[in-house]
Amino acid sequence: MIGCRAMMLRFGNASLCLCLNRNLIGSWSRIRSESIRSAVGNPRGFKISGRGQLNNKFSCVSKNSSVVTPESTGKGEVDLLTASDDNHRGVIVEINDPMNPKDFVSSLRASILNWRQQGKRGVWLKLPIKSSNLVQPAVEEGFYYHHAEPSYLMLVYWIPATKNTLPVNATHRVGVGAIVMNDRGEVLAVQERSGKLRGSGVWKFPTGVVDQGEDIFAGAVREVKEETGIDVEFVEVLAFRQSHMSFFEKSDLFFICMMRPLSSEIRRQESEIEAAQWMSIKEMAEQPFAQKHELLRYMINVGLAKAEKSYNGFSPRRIKSSFSNRQSYLYLNDKSLDQPSRSDDSSEDS
Amino acid sequence: MIGCRAMMLRFGNASLCLCLNRNLIGSWSRIRSESIRSAVGNPRGFKISGRGQLNNKFSCVSKNSSVVTPESTGKGEVDLLTASDDNHRGVIVEINDPMNPKDFVSSLRASILNWRQQGKRGVWLKLPIKSSNLVQPAVEEGFYYHHAEPSYLMLVYWIPATKNTLPVNATHRVGVGAIVMNDRGEVLAVQERSGKLRGSGVWKFPTGVVDQGEDIFAGAVREVKEETGIDVEFVEVLAFRQSHMSFFEKSDLFFICMMRPLSSEIRRQESEIEAAQWMSIKEMAEQPFAQKHELLRYMINVGLAKAEKSYNGFSPRRIKSSFSNRQSYLYLNDKSLDQPSRSDDSSEDS
Repeated sequence: MIGCRAMMLRFGNASLCLCLNRNLIGSWSRIRSESIRSAVGNPRGFKISGRGQLNNKFSCVSKNSSVVTPESTGKGEVDLLTASDDNHRGVIVEINDPMNPKDFVSSLRASILNWRQQGKRGVWLKLPIKSSNLVQPAVEEGFYYHHAEPSYLMLVYWIPATKNTLPVNATHRVGVGAIVMNDRGEVLAVQERSGKLRGSGVWKFPTGVVDQGEDIFAGAVREVKEETGIDVEFVEVLAFRQSHMSFFEKSDLFFICMMRPLSSEIRRQESEIEAAQWMSIKEMAEQPFAQKHELLRYMINVGLAKAEKSYNGFSPRRIKSSFSNRQSYLYLNDKSLDQPSRSDDSSEDS
Repeated sequence: MIGCRAMMLRFGNASLCLCLNRNLIGSWSRIRSESIRSAVGNPRGFKISGRGQLNNKFSCVSKNSSVVTPESTGKGEVDLLTASDDNHRGVIVEINDPMNPKDFVSSLRASILNWRQQGKRGVWLKLPIKSSNLVQPAVEEGFYYHHAEPSYLMLVYWIPATKNTLPVNATHRVGVGAIVMNDRGEVLAVQERSGKLRGSGVWKFPTGVVDQGEDIFAGAVREVKEETGIDVEFVEVLAFRQSHMSFFEKSDLFFICMMRPLSSEIRRQESEIEAAQWMSIKEMAEQPFAQKHELLRYMINVGLAKAEKSYNGFSPRRIKSSFSNRQSYLYLNDKSLDQPSRSDDSSEDS
């Protein structure tokens, strides 16, 4: 098999033959045994046999998909894990089929040696929740948690001895607060059934959390509709607040949104909303709670300033990425920027 | 023992005696066996014995910390998991000491029955990475992943038959792009060593990702310092972009920040930055890449507009939460808002 040489490594009492492309053999000899031990989680009894030497006794089946390990499996080889490359010299592995922990660990160890040979840095391991049996083995091999969603856990492993430059996990939740003001200067106000203001009788603006993948303006429109039944159109982000440790260790970005009502008849969401009404913004401001709650006071003041046309917030403009066809929204003060649009698309707001 | 009654349940061939406060017994009889089966992950052989009846044969040791299970453990009782309440009628469990999976499952099942009695809804289970042996058992009991950080995995379980209202995980990473303009109208420009523009020769603004718990203005100051050695002060957020699916399923909020340089001598970060220089913003705009990259074009245009004092972005003001002593920052267009500060603190920017 052209370009493929075999190298025998010894894990405890199991041998492992690693396929090496010839142009990698030079770099192999520079890898210290210490770093290999760290790569495989430094298991007990780990020994390297014939390091830097070539051994053709065991033929390689496929350069990039398996290595021969006559003593470690009945079939005489270990499948490497299927991986795709990321943009930062790393690999992404997604386990789609059930595996038993023993086979998984064998494949993982062989794969890490292979990726190390290829100069890979970060290893992303995506384990669906149905493969929760592989979490403990992966952790024991030196992986740690990166993030999780209901259906999967993402673990990571950093191969080189250099500083880990893996990107951080998502750090923020995004919330919206909606100032929905009608032509009479009244705002849409609610009393909530849960949370810190439950039972307090405080009238506040509708608020909510933006869903995964949802645009801020769309989340604000949806939340107002869900809580009060009122149809609204998005006008501007008037301000935003960043706060920390708001949800376990996570931070929060709360966008204060000016909205224009398109309907007037309130149908409140009974499960979440105790009461909803149109009320004068002055009356909302006079509540004792508003006097001491700085954020609500600011919301009222920027809402009033916007209504008096003396305040400019940020409006969304659709823009295209130059790296993909994906579209996103740029929120900016377009009242004070006369930027010609490149296309019709980019001048649409929502 | 006042107020505590025992109820025997049967899990396969193991009995479990549940402590009940008298005022919960009424609600117990309304719980259907189906929902209990779902609460304990519907294990094989699950049977309820004496449901709705009281059985005082087994005395309760402690109303909230253990239940008597003479057949399931050698000691004759199962410790309930220690839990604290959250603000939304749920409980938070943090496993701090090593447990074996069998004891963990016994305690978890008994605890869920107990929380159900108390009308609890969401159960948060925080497993440190050293307790990765409990991930699979928890999943098998019906828990699913909520989020993860390097040192722990958070799982959740929703007890009632009603719709799950658990808050979403963090959905966004927060990035910053820094327009650092000096008195001669030059901007600080870099060429990056990794990412999509590696090796392209494109000059761009310094960018970076905000750390967990870091303020946007602080992240922008830090990134400029790290990449170029230039000290800067934060001026304003000029605009922000929200994009989706930018990092696995996660979204991204990218804040375009105007910065004022406090030093001029560049010392680039060799590991990440290929080159750094002061250059005219016009020259940056004339690069072919800037012509087709809509976001960079907008950055240049809002930066120019800001330099010409024809553009207002959002500046940070420190505000206090009325629920805690924590401080956070509200970013707003304070040029068009004359809001009196409540205290000296709230008028400070950074």
